[in-house]
Amino acid sequence: MEQELMTAEEIRQLIEEKRFSELKAYLMETNPADIAEVLNDELSKEQYMMLYRLLPKELAAEVFVDLDTDRQEMLIRAFSDAELKAVLDEMYLDDTVDIIEEMPATVVRRILETCDSRDRKIINTLLKYPKDSAGSIMTPEYICLKADWTVEESFELIRRVAIDKETIYTCYVTDKKRVLIGLVTAKMLLLADRDAIIGDIMEDNVIAVPTAEDQEIVAQMFDKYDFLALPVVDGENRLVGIITVDDVIDVMHDEIEEDFAKMNAIVASEKPYLKTTVFELWKNRMPWLLLLMFTATFTGMIISSFESALAAQAVLTAFIPMLMGTGGNSGSQSSVTIIRGLSVGEVEFSDWLTVVWKEIRVAVLCGVTLAVGTFIKIMLVDNLILQSGITPLVAVVVCLTMCVTVFCAKIIGCVLPILAKKVGFDPAVMASPFITTIVDAVSLIVYFQIASMVLGI
Amino acid sequence: MEQELMTAEEIRQLIEEKRFSELKAYLMETNPADIAEVLNDELSKEQYMMLYRLLPKELAAEVFVDLDTDRQEMLIRAFSDAELKAVLDEMYLDDTVDIIEEMPATVVRRILETCDSRDRKIINTLLKYPKDSAGSIMTPEYICLKADWTVEESFELIRRVAIDKETIYTCYVTDKKRVLIGLVTAKMLLLADRDAIIGDIMEDNVIAVPTAEDQEIVAQMFDKYDFLALPVVDGENRLVGIITVDDVIDVMHDEIEEDFAKMNAIVASEKPYLKTTVFELWKNRMPWLLLLMFTATFTGMIISSFESALAAQAVLTAFIPMLMGTGGNSGSQSSVTIIRGLSVGEVEFSDWLTVVWKEIRVAVLCGVTLAVGTFIKIMLVDNLILQSGITPLVAVVVCLTMCVTVFCAKIIGCVLPILAKKVGFDPAVMASPFITTIVDAVSLIVYFQIASMVLGI
Repeated sequence: MEQELMTAEEIRQLIEEKRFSELKAYLMETNPADIAEVLNDELSKEQYMMLYRLLPKELAAEVFVDLDTDRQEMLIRAFSDAELKAVLDEMYLDDTVDIIEEMPATVVRRILETCDSRDRKIINTLLKYPKDSAGSIMTPEYICLKADWTVEESFELIRRVAIDKETIYTCYVTDKKRVLIGLVTAKMLLLADRDAIIGDIMEDNVIAVPTAEDQEIVAQMFDKYDFLALPVVDGENRLVGIITVDDVIDVMHDEIEEDFAKMNAIVASEKPYLKTTVFELWKNRMPWLLLLMFTATFTGMIISSFESALAAQAVLTAFIPMLMGTGGNSGSQSSVTIIRGLSVGEVEFSDWLTVVWKEIRVAVLCGVTLAVGTFIKIMLVDNLILQSGITPLVAVVVCLTMCVTVFCAKIIGCVLPILAKKVGFDPAVMASPFITTIVDAVSLIVYFQIASMVLGI
Repeated sequence: MEQELMTAEEIRQLIEEKRFSELKAYLMETNPADIAEVLNDELSKEQYMMLYRLLPKELAAEVFVDLDTDRQEMLIRAFSDAELKAVLDEMYLDDTVDIIEEMPATVVRRILETCDSRDRKIINTLLKYPKDSAGSIMTPEYICLKADWTVEESFELIRRVAIDKETIYTCYVTDKKRVLIGLVTAKMLLLADRDAIIGDIMEDNVIAVPTAEDQEIVAQMFDKYDFLALPVVDGENRLVGIITVDDVIDVMHDEIEEDFAKMNAIVASEKPYLKTTVFELWKNRMPWLLLLMFTATFTGMIISSFESALAAQAVLTAFIPMLMGTGGNSGSQSSVTIIRGLSVGEVEFSDWLTVVWKEIRVAVLCGVTLAVGTFIKIMLVDNLILQSGITPLVAVVVCLTMCVTVFCAKIIGCVLPILAKKVGFDPAVMASPFITTIVDAVSLIVYFQIASMVLGI
């Protein structure tokens, strides 16, 4: 059954010993994604080309699509025109477009010159759709049936064109003007009589998306409806392409990684970590670090303006990290919950009142619990065990601050992402680091105000 | 084509005016996921049952699967035995198992009593697989062919059993002992001659997973190989079930939300935010907040032990939030990058040396950049604009601390998740809040040590 995968080492050895027929036999039995993984990793350029040239045309194209961008570029530059054309002919057009988008201009020119003129036209159209839109991830290679065909006729067409189509399991029905009027699945076709008419058996209530739809919404729809494919239509409801579930999984993957990066003050990049250079990592991480460092000027100013109070009650300083830390954690709990809710469509802008009211109640509960916890901690740990001699009044100041800070943090944490969404920003930016910076300032102001009032300093 | 969705308001009105045939016609044309959305939301129990009973059996079961757990429970309790049996008969067994896992014991008993004995046996087997394993998300309802059948015979079987199978697009071939020996896709069958033998056309190199495989690995395999379905085998390589792509999308969804929660100090829950009660939110958020609050005792102790130094140079206090904040952000950038890399399989434990060496270089670059940035900021903003009168020596202390803190933060941020993975913890817990707490303490120690040395206090 399932065969063992060879390591790059074993493959290198086969190449060096020129045991090509053995190697070819192995490759023919191996999944393209696994071949790509070896090719991405550990071979010299010559071994790499050697191995690639052993692959039969169709498999070669499948492997090519799975390669890293820099490997693809190297191959394209090494290919003869005939080799490049062979790969391009085997590839689905949406994959070609994905590759073109990552290539330098000279390589793009070479690809476009090698395509036949019909493909070139389609590619140019696809390239014009905005990044992250349904149009940019769809493929024009779908199966299109007519309503007056029989099931038998449809099967004939499917058999004839299947090889070039990204999926044959969902077929779309269009009228003379290419307007989408229905769909039939391969299952429906298989279960129907051979002479049934497509128009009679088709599902005529087709869920479709416009070309401009955000790919995140497309991913939500696949999640909700369990589709294998989703049709994409233009402004006149004409079918222009389809999006298949495997492409959507890639989209989900990219969107999630982008969110994780943004929510942790990193400029998002699509490169895997181990392939990213030190300089690129530095470039992705510095902007937010510098910005957040500058904004911390405010917290410094707040502390400076209470310098005399801190001098009078030096013990107050010791609680600053705990208050700021707990405030930041409380705020990021709320913000991440709302950001994710917005991102998967569970929370809408119109829910803002429900969200704020819920967070207010959670904030009160959390604030009070933490204040009580802090009081117990100060009395037991700080005073009893560590003998810090913290006066009850100072403890009250700290606990009151804890309560108010947590409350403010949770409200800020839930309001900012919703506001961001409303004004068209990505709510993900309103996550932990951003919230923490604001909450830091708020907690200090609250702390010093309460300290002034209670301790009279 | 695509029809407008009715609002809950419009549906309520149809029910109240008893326009049932109109309502039924609408429901028949509507996607089950959209019907479930309305049922989840806004109807009274009576309206809810009324609407549900209008649905034909098959559609009713599809809607049922998409409902929220509390709605499902309500329905099961309201169903007659015959109604419950009708729904269970239409449902796929893996969905039944998912529902059973969420229900209280009395409801589970009722479900199991209503199933026929064959289904009950299968359900009980499925329930025994550990949570989050391949076995727990697979379905036993797949299409199984024999190697000596013809394509024609296979199509006959498919037509006969299709209605009960979760997918007909990937069919598996087993020998007499149920050992998995190959697969054919519906596409392969359609393109083959009617009298071709399955054993000749099947793909005999089948990638499968054992029942105990982690569902996260399963999700990674779908992402890598673009499968529509993946077979699950027992210890003797016998086929016991399949996992379909729509179920894997749900798994991805759950795993991601769990990671987001964990990485932000929240106890993960599968309930959507708007359905979670205030008390549940409080319960999910408090444990980590309390724990992190207690651990902040250390930062307090560090500050207390340098009280006299801070009294001598009160200006030092003002930079504490900036140093801790930047340290925390730097550390969480590294940790989230590594956590994600580990989670999607881009980074393995064996890469630890590469990772640490890369992070060391990034850390030096980031540390130096931030130190220089801080120096410029202190000179321009604090001294020139705000007239804070910070001495060059203090500025040097702050900048040196910045450099060392960022360096330590990045190393801690990359090492902890890798270590966690090695000892079998979930690396996600080593994210922002946890790292921040450690980095807070580290940055304070570094700060005061450098201050003592440079300023001689």
